[in-house]
Amino acid sequence: MKVGRQEHTHTAICGSNPDAIVVRGHDLCRDLIGQLGFTEYVWLLITGRRPQPGQRAALDATLLAIAEHGLVPSVQASRMTLAAAPEALQGAVAAGILGCGSVLLGSAEAAGRFLDEVVRRSRESAPETAAREVVARYRAERRAIPGYGHPLHKGGDPRTIRLLQVAEENGTTGEHIAAAGLVERLLPEITGRQLAMNVSAAIPAVLLDAGYPLPALKGVPILARTAGLIAHLVEEQLRPIGFVMSHAAASAISYDGPAPEGFVESDS
Amino acid sequence: MKVGRQEHTHTAICGSNPDAIVVRGHDLCRDLIGQLGFTEYVWLLITGRRPQPGQRAALDATLLAIAEHGLVPSVQASRMTLAAAPEALQGAVAAGILGCGSVLLGSAEAAGRFLDEVVRRSRESAPETAAREVVARYRAERRAIPGYGHPLHKGGDPRTIRLLQVAEENGTTGEHIAAAGLVERLLPEITGRQLAMNVSAAIPAVLLDAGYPLPALKGVPILARTAGLIAHLVEEQLRPIGFVMSHAAASAISYDGPAPEGFVESDS
Amino acid sequence: MKVGRQEHTHTAICGSNPDAIVVRGHDLCRDLIGQLGFTEYVWLLITGRRPQPGQRAALDATLLAIAEHGLVPSVQASRMTLAAAPEALQGAVAAGILGCGSVLLGSAEAAGRFLDEVVRRSRESAPETAAREVVARYRAERRAIPGYGHPLHKGGDPRTIRLLQVAEENGTTGEHIAAAGLVERLLPEITGRQLAMNVSAAIPAVLLDAGYPLPALKGVPILARTAGLIAHLVEEQLRPIGFVMSHAAASAISYDGPAPEGFVESDS
Amino acid sequence: MKVGRQEHTHTAICGSNPDAIVVRGHDLCRDLIGQLGFTEYVWLLITGRRPQPGQRAALDATLLAIAEHGLVPSVQASRMTLAAAPEALQGAVAAGILGCGSVLLGSAEAAGRFLDEVVRRSRESAPETAAREVVARYRAERRAIPGYGHPLHKGGDPRTIRLLQVAEENGTTGEHIAAAGLVERLLPEITGRQLAMNVSAAIPAVLLDAGYPLPALKGVPILARTAGLIAHLVEEQLRPIGFVMSHAAASAISYDGPAPEGFVESDS
Repeated sequence: MKVGRQEHTHTAICGSNPDAIVVRGHDLCRDLIGQLGFTEYVWLLITGRRPQPGQRAALDATLLAIAEHGLVPSVQASRMTLAAAPEALQGAVAAGILGCGSVLLGSAEAAGRFLDEVVRRSRESAPETAAREVVARYRAERRAIPGYGHPLHKGGDPRTIRLLQVAEENGTTGEHIAAAGLVERLLPEITGRQLAMNVSAAIPAVLLDAGYPLPALKGVPILARTAGLIAHLVEEQLRPIGFVMSHAAASAISYDGPAPEGFVESDS
Repeated sequence: MKVGRQEHTHTAICGSNPDAIVVRGHDLCRDLIGQLGFTEYVWLLITGRRPQPGQRAALDATLLAIAEHGLVPSVQASRMTLAAAPEALQGAVAAGILGCGSVLLGSAEAAGRFLDEVVRRSRESAPETAAREVVARYRAERRAIPGYGHPLHKGGDPRTIRLLQVAEENGTTGEHIAAAGLVERLLPEITGRQLAMNVSAAIPAVLLDAGYPLPALKGVPILARTAGLIAHLVEEQLRPIGFVMSHAAASAISYDGPAPEGFVESDS
Repeated sequence: MKVGRQEHTHTAICGSNPDAIVVRGHDLCRDLIGQLGFTEYVWLLITGRRPQPGQRAALDATLLAIAEHGLVPSVQASRMTLAAAPEALQGAVAAGILGCGSVLLGSAEAAGRFLDEVVRRSRESAPETAAREVVARYRAERRAIPGYGHPLHKGGDPRTIRLLQVAEENGTTGEHIAAAGLVERLLPEITGRQLAMNVSAAIPAVLLDAGYPLPALKGVPILARTAGLIAHLVEEQLRPIGFVMSHAAASAISYDGPAPEGFVESDS
Repeated sequence: MKVGRQEHTHTAICGSNPDAIVVRGHDLCRDLIGQLGFTEYVWLLITGRRPQPGQRAALDATLLAIAEHGLVPSVQASRMTLAAAPEALQGAVAAGILGCGSVLLGSAEAAGRFLDEVVRRSRESAPETAAREVVARYRAERRAIPGYGHPLHKGGDPRTIRLLQVAEENGTTGEHIAAAGLVERLLPEITGRQLAMNVSAAIPAVLLDAGYPLPALKGVPILARTAGLIAHLVEEQLRPIGFVMSHAAASAISYDGPAPEGFVESDS
């Protein structure tokens, strides 16, 4: 069965023959291995071009900012999965990655689309007007402004401040960071709430200003988190806590459905 | 329900409070972001220690060697999944990672365990004796010697040669690389077949010699391949081929089960 | 870190103690096993109530209609994943399920939401007016009308016809099936194209008329397809075709990126 | 790149043309939908043959026994994943299925292989001798005897008793159930511990005696659990507890790695 109406029959990422593997135009063994760092290679793979130093710095900094934040839901899902299925590390990593969705890690992409819209609109009207318009539209559609507010770091996420510094130090600060700051200043007046720019806004702001492509934004938290997940899964093999966490989680919830007469639920 | 008998209630990877995120003893924002590259951070996350330059070089080189090799099965699965479910990039990445199993990408881990056994046994008997014993045991158990032979690069995988050079250049060559080479020399005599060391043996040889931990080996192809998958998924959004590949794949297979009289299968 | 503002701490699906497992108010061992079929149990698990015979028939018929349709992309992804990672059947099933997305299998849910809107609006205005309004809004938002048209069965999907018959035979035909038929009749005039109702519209029409809950619609193709995937994965263990399909798929695509001088890509 | 040496280019599960979908030799629309229940269809898909009533009863009973057991780790992983990524129900189902591994749900397959070995060996020597030999070999290889013992139902899993009754009622009791009971009687003497047959042994015993194929065993808990996961994910949409469970889980674990001077971890 042919599904859809796709016309392309090419890929521009990698080709090979028995003597050479060509990645984005470069001979992998002759020109890349031993000469490029992984961050540079990631940029090359995704964009087709080797990064400038400031671009590499932006990608390094954002990957570090989002790779690890303790026992968040996706890490828990991953460690529980390994505890139940130790034969397949890849399955436990996959379970963790599946939690990089719109609510948690994927919000960097949503914030990137938001900032991109503010920036594009700023080219036609004054930045503050543009920002107000985009925020107003989000609110009219009852959508949260992505990238502002944080349950833990209420006074301002320390990662945000540091990421903006790194961009400054590397001379890659541009209109997306400006837009992100502008929105942060406007939000209290518009929403009546103090909502600090969080890491989900800082990551796309820094990356887009460095020239990283918008459609690839979600790849950054996914790649970064994969590294964190692997560290947790190595620890889970040596000091398992997956079932301990599961026991605590189950104990927090009780059954409130109907039951046969006399039934008493066990403490989990 | 309490499953298992786990005793641990700690993690040593990351702790946080509203002011700081501590990763492996370092303040993430003060000491790491903007100062460490992602490869160094991955090493720190997994091992608890910052890497030496040769360690970073080994991890960079092996990540580059395995991140991308064209339209391999896991990439196809990932691109087909995105074509069918474009709303969830994380799902397409997960589908690709699930193919990092024992037959394809996971063989680096199997080869690492094999080399580790040869090396440990070499400390008690002569290396060649040790290698012959471990090979003999694998063959007695009808297991393939992991990390030798390749369907495409029959004359020797160019990545293998380059990875060993990088280890040489960085002074990290040690007993695992020696063991891998020794096995390569012994295999024709033992098996009657010329089986060149492939990248699945070179990766663990280089990493273990650099001090990378054995239980974390499988994380390297998984992390590397995640980067390749993201590049392919960005391309899939712009130049989709998922359904084209699926159509070609289905066309290669025909139905040979029973059928009602007169039924003729369509060309796919 | 506490994420979100969830207030619930209960589940109404299952509770247990050492003597009994209670599911939706029934003692699993005493009242359900040996007395209920799986389809009835699925309905009970999801809705909290045992199904009437017509409800069971509707769920059986729709599960059968969508469980298996040959080597579709999700089946290919699943079989390739098993070929690469035979140690984890669950991973191969998961890879296949990840393709139950908005474009392919998930379209039953989208069609369900569309039909639900037509039906709800029909309670306020004439059905044809209601249908025209909802179709017009979809088109204004440049969204396809979900559940109409099929790449293979252009003259009408035989599963659609049969599903509607089953509903008729069991007396569960109602306003969602009526709405689906009404839209089918209106579409040629509105869109200028003959678009037959496909199985993605028939499934929610039949299920919603039988009283199956809208938020659970997507579960039907996922559960059904899991059965198909398992059959394919059992076959893959006995007559593997995962890598044959992958080879054919790769052969359909060539590299068109830049390359070092003299590089000629291999035939896959 | 051609991977592996696969020779097959056929599937015997499903073929189609614009007029008909043929599944295992039957016209799906003409012969199956509306006439077969889902359980019968699952048996047909997997084995190629329609089940006898006792076979259907065995599959129904085992699916019911394993579909749902409250907030077990895989359900928690699934609900946390939906909370984080509500846009992809299929991702949350996949995350749950990935926990159907060797330790938890997959143990039914391991127990099936164990019982199969006892039964095959019983055809050559006395059943008790056969059972003792297989148990002895497992213990020599330091493997647990799969399917015996349970953390919650120490006095005997009520599902086990009920499953064996269903087999009795349907006249499908045979040598696998006999072997499972024999092992249960021998274990206290051999191991010094009272280890009741649990549901992971009863499921394969009942299924194999009914003629269900060994290589498809793992599909039963996976399919069953998919139904349970869908019920939980529907509930998670209406009464979310994913983040509540995650918060409780994180609170049970504390950071014991190194930290900068003065760092105090937050209560989660």
